[in-house]
Formats: sequence, structure tokens, C-alpha cells
Amino acid sequence: MYSNLQDSFSKMSGRMKKSAIRELLKLTNKPGLISFAGGLPAPCTFPSAELVEISKEVLEKEASIALQYGTTEGDDLLREQLVKRYVAMGLPINKGNLVITTSSQQALDFLGRVFVNEGDKVIVELPSYLGGIQAFTAYGADLVGICSDEHGMSSKLLEEKIVELVKAGQKPKFIYIIPDFQNPAGGTMPEFRRKEIIEIAHKYEILIVEDSPYRELRFEGTAQPTIYQLDTKGITITLGTFSKIFVPGFRIGWIIAHPDIIDKFVTAKQSVDLCTPAFVQRIAARYMEKGYFEKNLKATIKLYGHKKKIMMESFKKYMPEGVKWTDPEGGLFLFVYLPEHMDAQKLFMTAVDNNVAFVIGQVFHCDGSGKNTMRINFSFCDDDYIVEGVKRLADAIRAYK
Amino acid sequence: MYSNLQDSFSKMSGRMKKSAIRELLKLTNKPGLISFAGGLPAPCTFPSAELVEISKEVLEKEASIALQYGTTEGDDLLREQLVKRYVAMGLPINKGNLVITTSSQQALDFLGRVFVNEGDKVIVELPSYLGGIQAFTAYGADLVGICSDEHGMSSKLLEEKIVELVKAGQKPKFIYIIPDFQNPAGGTMPEFRRKEIIEIAHKYEILIVEDSPYRELRFEGTAQPTIYQLDTKGITITLGTFSKIFVPGFRIGWIIAHPDIIDKFVTAKQSVDLCTPAFVQRIAARYMEKGYFEKNLKATIKLYGHKKKIMMESFKKYMPEGVKWTDPEGGLFLFVYLPEHMDAQKLFMTAVDNNVAFVIGQVFHCDGSGKNTMRINFSFCDDDYIVEGVKRLADAIRAYK
Repeated sequence: MYSNLQDSFSKMSGRMKKSAIRELLKLTNKPGLISFAGGLPAPCTFPSAELVEISKEVLEKEASIALQYGTTEGDDLLREQLVKRYVAMGLPINKGNLVITTSSQQALDFLGRVFVNEGDKVIVELPSYLGGIQAFTAYGADLVGICSDEHGMSSKLLEEKIVELVKAGQKPKFIYIIPDFQNPAGGTMPEFRRKEIIEIAHKYEILIVEDSPYRELRFEGTAQPTIYQLDTKGITITLGTFSKIFVPGFRIGWIIAHPDIIDKFVTAKQSVDLCTPAFVQRIAARYMEKGYFEKNLKATIKLYGHKKKIMMESFKKYMPEGVKWTDPEGGLFLFVYLPEHMDAQKLFMTAVDNNVAFVIGQVFHCDGSGKNTMRINFSFCDDDYIVEGVKRLADAIRAYK
Repeated sequence: MYSNLQDSFSKMSGRMKKSAIRELLKLTNKPGLISFAGGLPAPCTFPSAELVEISKEVLEKEASIALQYGTTEGDDLLREQLVKRYVAMGLPINKGNLVITTSSQQALDFLGRVFVNEGDKVIVELPSYLGGIQAFTAYGADLVGICSDEHGMSSKLLEEKIVELVKAGQKPKFIYIIPDFQNPAGGTMPEFRRKEIIEIAHKYEILIVEDSPYRELRFEGTAQPTIYQLDTKGITITLGTFSKIFVPGFRIGWIIAHPDIIDKFVTAKQSVDLCTPAFVQRIAARYMEKGYFEKNLKATIKLYGHKKKIMMESFKKYMPEGVKWTDPEGGLFLFVYLPEHMDAQKLFMTAVDNNVAFVIGQVFHCDGSGKNTMRINFSFCDDDYIVEGVKRLADAIRAYK
């Protein structure tokens, strides 16, 4: 290799950092460790038997489509199934509003690719999803974090910041929000706050990105309308994925937006991977068509509601005083606030020694705040492990010096 | 939608153009048309029965891996199988040299992402693969085309151009070559020319990208060593894919390179799609493990050799004087040279009226040359259609005014 290889790498390459989650997770690869890190669905929710049946049918009847190159927009049948489902939910869309992506992460990458020039401002929540932070930062986005109150991103702080940025000639490219069971904070934005944010977006002509991978996983409370539905001007870009509500191993996500925006994503996709694997798309389409999707989702919601309950009980029972946590109505995560003086990164090492792991909350804060926070997943572990893991975590917190 | 939406799009978005092939192909979507455009494998080569068997086994025994998130580097078993195969072919690699990509197009995108800053020079062949041209251009690469002689990219012209660029402080980031059954020109670079280009690359410390999707599809002549094998300094980045030798519908490709370069691609992949679908990767791994891959590839090679023969015979029989074409020893394409005064784009419309289609050669030339050339695919059509299609094409050429 040339000694000056480093000089060959692009500026973009320099902006891409290894995911802190993924690097820390390497430490958790030890036998006996209980991991509340990651965001893995429970494998028992994977509908293997139905997929055996459907894979066979697809391969026997539709191999010339399912094993061939597909269209960039995505499998026609799958787009039809998804559109039908969203229309039933009240979203006024058709196939021209939807493009399939190879995972929701690809959709986040496309947002950077299609909208962000180096130095452009992008507004995110404090905290926000790490995958979004990474994708936008790779394109040189300058992230502006807006703090939340109990209803999610503060509309007051949002408008103040936008006024300031617009004055400085730095109008943000978009506002990135995870309104349902936010990752990592777990909260859901009520309808009135969604409307306030839409109003601000309209006033200053800024796009909204509604990232919604967990929305369907509601086990308590009342669903709020999507931002896409509430937005009367069609300036919302909504992201969905099968990863948490079906299987992550297919890497199927989608973007819903105005056709002029979808068109840009389709052009991007031609140069990025041409099309998402036709095989998994066709299987997913037939799976939905047969009604398996709704049935399985129902069971998954029930399971995760149960797991959350176990985790809540364990937290109440074992956590030392001064520790606070959210009680989400859906999704996969709790967010935990340690006493102010504690550093979750320091705690992480003690916890791993104690055979339990989590994700430090700081990585979700684009301004480096959140040192005393951590994200806890409850979808992956079996019940006994949830109880035992919380016990170990509480011990680690108590042992913190 | 906001009236000023266009102002929101990034510079990169402006550099991404819809693929000329894909847009022209839309015109060919009419009943009765015989298409020599595209680069689709013959669906009869898709091993559906074996995939029914393996999908079932994977879903029954390994669902918790195959339907879950995977590692960014790629499925461990699949990487092992691929490495084993390359080692047997004489490439001195291990798993640290290989990352799985979601299609070879993703690998091309990664090359732009990891190496190219706006304005950077990248050397390509004249003509070269459109997907590469698009991917590099999206990142702002300034492509420098080098003409070929009968042995592929001219080493003389290459060195002259590099000297000129280095003097101007514009050392190219890499040299992009498709050495085996080049797309679109169909030729294969002999060993001596590969060595000359490696020597030039070493002298000026420039990376080589060896894009090799068709290499295994040799039905005549003698295989040449890969550039990766011949390169003694480990500065070659080799791209492979299952799309032409197994199924495109899985979208599985891979990159072989020095670990320091692989590391950059893995970091890029975290932000781009996190991981390639675990399901198709595990199926592909088991498919290789069972020996189905080699058996099926053998049959595919035989079939494509036969199809090429049919096409050659038809060309000889029907083409008017003044038309010249290549006679490839493998791959999927012929390259056709019309008389100098003819414009293949103009011919394209007549041809489509005549119910036959091809890809105009100009789109593969980064300098806009090649107006009188066209690319003809012979892998997709059945024998009778090949004969009939060539007849129609010859008629269209005769009718050209």
C-alpha cells in the first residue's frame, strides 16, 4: 500500500465516523452478558413458517420477477399494498408518493444526499436518532438541536431558533422529527404540538421529515395522527420500515412524500443501488396480501407491551433513588436519567463488568449533552433476562463512584 | 408544496441525472418489441428449485440470524465462502479484505463517497460502464477518458495523461477499469497490458479499481489473471457481484481490497444502509456451500456461449456492409460500430418503430464521443428472438437516412 493512502480519502470519508453504538457493542460480545443496547426485535416475532410458505410460492410462480433486477421505485405489488394500508390509515397518497428504500437508513442517507450541502443547517431533536445524525453529518450538515418539553420538540424554542437562523441567511433544510415513541427518548408528540410545528414549517417554508419506524408498535394509549396527514401543504417526508414490525433481515424501508421529492430520491437510488432486492420485496408483498402482516403485528405489539411491563416493574423494584425513567406507550425503548453528577459512559464499563449493557444517551445528543442518560431496549431480551439485567444495572449504578 | 422547492435541493442532487438507459428503456415497454438493451441475465438460469430448498432450511434452522439485523461487514458464512473461492483462484485474501455490498452499484457509490471530492480527477475507459460514470459524477468527479487499442485502455495514453495531470496538481484518485468482457465494449485486457497499467499506477501512486462482474462468464479463450493478483503492492480494489452469475434479485456484491480501505467502506456502509439483507446473504452462503453455485454457473456459461454464437451468425447473415462488431469471449454484450456518419440515437427511434431496441453507445463515453456505436445484449433473449431481432435491427440500419 502507498504510504500516503490517507491523502486519497475524501472529505466526506473524514466526516464519517464509526457508530459509537456499534463500537461499544463489540465490548458486549461476551458470554453471559445481558444486553439492553441495540434495538433488535425479538426473534420469536419472526414469522418463519409463513415465510417458508411464501418463499416457496414466490420462487415457484414468480422467480423471473423475484430473482431479476427490479424497478428503482420498488416492487409494484409491494407499493400497492403499502399505499392501500396508508390510505386506510387516512393518508391521502398513491404510488407516486412512495419509493421503496433498502432500509430506512438508506432513506436517511437520501435526505442528506438530496438536500444537504456542506454547512447546511438541519434541525434535530435533543436527543435524536443516531443513524439520522450520522447520515446527515456525512454530507456536512451542521445539526441544530432543539430541546424538548414533555410534549416533544419545543415549538417555542424551534421558532426562536429558526428566526435566528433565517436572519443569519442560514434557513435550515429540514426539521427531523421522530414523533412516535421517539428513539431514544420514548415519548410521543401529541397532535397539538405536531400542528404547531407544521405551522412553523409552513410559515418559514421548511420541509419536515417524520421518521416513524415505531409508530405501529403502540400497546397503550391513543394513536396521534401522522404529521403527513395533518400537513395541508404536502411538505412532509415520512419514513417507514419493516425492521421493527416485520423483519429487519429484509432491509425494506420506504419514503412517502410529494412526487417532486420522490422523483429526486428515485434518481438518487439509481446511482446508489439501482433497486432494492426484488426477492424480499415480492415476499413482503405477498405476505401483506395474505393478511399475515396484520396478524403478526398484533402479536408483536402484545409481546412488547408485556415486556415493557416486566421492565417497568423491575425498574420500580430495583433502581436506587434518584434514577428516573420514561414509561413509553409503545416502541422499543426506555430512556433513563441518572442523577446529574453521573456519567453514563463511565457507568457503561462497570455495567459491562457486571454483565449488562445499554447505550449511553450522550451519542444521541448532537450538542454533546445528555451525559447522565442511557437508552434501554426491552424488545429483545426474554422476561427472566429483563429482570436479571435490571438488577445488575441497578447494582452497577449503586457501585458507581 | 413550497414554490421554491428547487432551492432546497443539494448540489449533489443537481449532479445526479436519470440514467439514459433507464429512460430510453421506458420507450421499449411495448408488446412485441425485442430488446437487446439492458443487461438482464436469462431467467432460465435462476436456480429456483434449489432456492426453494435452501430458503426453507434457512428459515427453519437459522431464522434468528437470517431475519435479524446483520453485521455491516456482511454475513460471516458468505464472506468465508467467497474468500475460499477467491483463494482457490489465486487471490491472497482473507475475510479482512472483503466487505459485502448491497449490489455492485453500491460499491461504485462507495468509491465516490470514500475517495472523491468535487473536482477530483478519476480515470475511466472510453467507453466505460454507465453505472460507474453516474456514481462518480454524483460526487463531483471530473472523469478523464482514456482511449483503448485492441488490448484495452492504452497504457501509453494513460501515462501521458497522468503526467499531464500530476504536473497540473490534479493527480487522479483512481483508475477505473473493467478488464474482463468490458461493458460495453466486450473486450478482455491481456495480462501484459494489466501489468503495464499496474506499473504506471505504482509509479505515480494511484489506486486501481478492477470492476469485474462478468469475469466468470467466459465461454471461449483463456482467462487472464486478475489485476488484484498481479498487483504486488495491494493497491487494487476489486468489485464482484452475484448479479450476472447467480441472481440479480438478491442485490449482493462485494469489494476486495486492502484492510485499510475496507475499513473506510465499512464505516460508509454503516451510514448508508447499516447492512445488506441478512436473509439473501445467508441463502447465498448455503447455496455456495452446497456446491449449487458452481454447477449452475457452468450451465449459465454454456447457455450464454450458445446465445452469443446465434447472435454472431445472425449478425454475419443480416448486417449490411460497413457495420462492424466485436466477438467477445464471454460476458453479456457485443459492441457495434455503425458507419461513421450514422448516429445511433437517431437509429434508436427507427429501431423501436421496427420493434427492436439496443443501448446507444454514446452514453458510455464520458467525453460524448461514440455517436456511431451501440451495445447489444445477448444473454436475455431466446434464440428465435435473437435471430428475429438482428434481422429487424439490420432493416432499421438499412432504412437509416
